[in-house]
Amino acid sequence: MKIQLQKVLPKEIEQRSFEIITRELGDISLDPANEAVIKRVIHTTADFDYVNTLCFSPNAVAKGIEALKQGACIVTDTQMARAGVNKATLSALGGEAFCFMSDPDVAAAAKEQGTTRATASMDKAAAISRPLIFAIGNAPTALVRLYELIKEGKLKPLLVIGVPVGFVNVVEAKELLMELDVPYIVARGRKGGSNVAAAICNALLYQAKERE
Amino acid sequence: MKIQLQKVLPKEIEQRSFEIITRELGDISLDPANEAVIKRVIHTTADFDYVNTLCFSPNAVAKGIEALKQGACIVTDTQMARAGVNKATLSALGGEAFCFMSDPDVAAAAKEQGTTRATASMDKAAAISRPLIFAIGNAPTALVRLYELIKEGKLKPLLVIGVPVGFVNVVEAKELLMELDVPYIVARGRKGGSNVAAAICNALLYQAKERE
Repeated sequence: MKIQLQKVLPKEIEQRSFEIITRELGDISLDPANEAVIKRVIHTTADFDYVNTLCFSPNAVAKGIEALKQGACIVTDTQMARAGVNKATLSALGGEAFCFMSDPDVAAAAKEQGTTRATASMDKAAAISRPLIFAIGNAPTALVRLYELIKEGKLKPLLVIGVPVGFVNVVEAKELLMELDVPYIVARGRKGGSNVAAAICNALLYQAKERE
Repeated sequence: MKIQLQKVLPKEIEQRSFEIITRELGDISLDPANEAVIKRVIHTTADFDYVNTLCFSPNAVAKGIEALKQGACIVTDTQMARAGVNKATLSALGGEAFCFMSDPDVAAAAKEQGTTRATASMDKAAAISRPLIFAIGNAPTALVRLYELIKEGKLKPLLVIGVPVGFVNVVEAKELLMELDVPYIVARGRKGGSNVAAAICNALLYQAKERE
């Protein structure tokens, strides 16, 4: 069989992709407030499961957009997620993206405390005196540490994007976070990833930029 | 319901995850040559679809491992994939990871030629006179350009990891690549991603390191 490529201009690829996603969603109705986030996650993963697994606390998307418009910074738990965040847009809004996973002091703290670097990197982030959004795409231990810090009143993020992926304590860490009175966007279940975390950040960033 | 976290030591999380994956695969038999790659992709995505979609040309994994042992470099189509590659291991084997997507000359070439930056970044990579593995996790246009360069005899990669994700020309670009006489690892269908590309690189890198 001859394989035929569609002729699509570079600048039209993304728009065409979103049209296909919208068409394939068919009669499924999405909350308009969450639609841009859900569609961008599907765009990033080609996985329609996220229609059912993405959970939003009340007004989570509006709160995230408002935070970014006010110059909030984004803290990730992987260099991959940080690499995926649109830093030009973030910077134009006054924010910065941080990931402390490769920092020597984080590695040392993790070793001393018998914990993961992801956990130690959240402790380091908690010391930042700027408004923060957390985007956790990999390590459930990071999300558990956020849960503890928030519960103990030591941290008050403007939004937690809780989409770690995996098999050990991933489902549980997400459910724990959703018990808290904190704005969240969570991918319930095992799925998620650094790419999903970055996609959610970017969906918020693009809306924040539009509404400037 | 009380949410209970499992007690798992940091260093044991990955091993435990792979045990769960192995258990859930049950009676599904994987080609032992490809098993480490398939399981690491599932570990990265929590998506068992990859058991059915990952396609390997003959001895692709062995060829990739051998190339890395000989100091092959890895070229990615996103900064995210590059960020996810274990560069310490790659560097210990004598290789480097490149991504040209953010380079001003690539942006200029793309604009001039009316193509994507991903396409232009493959042209830039083709000029590198070192042994190369390509890891394409995002842009089908990058994979199509690789197909053209290889078919025209302008490029001879040691391995192409073809796992772009998406809705426009993604399925087709992967099928095209698999028509060529080039070692490949491809995730057939729409799914894939920068995280999948990096996971496959790392599965090869860890085996290359073990067999040094």
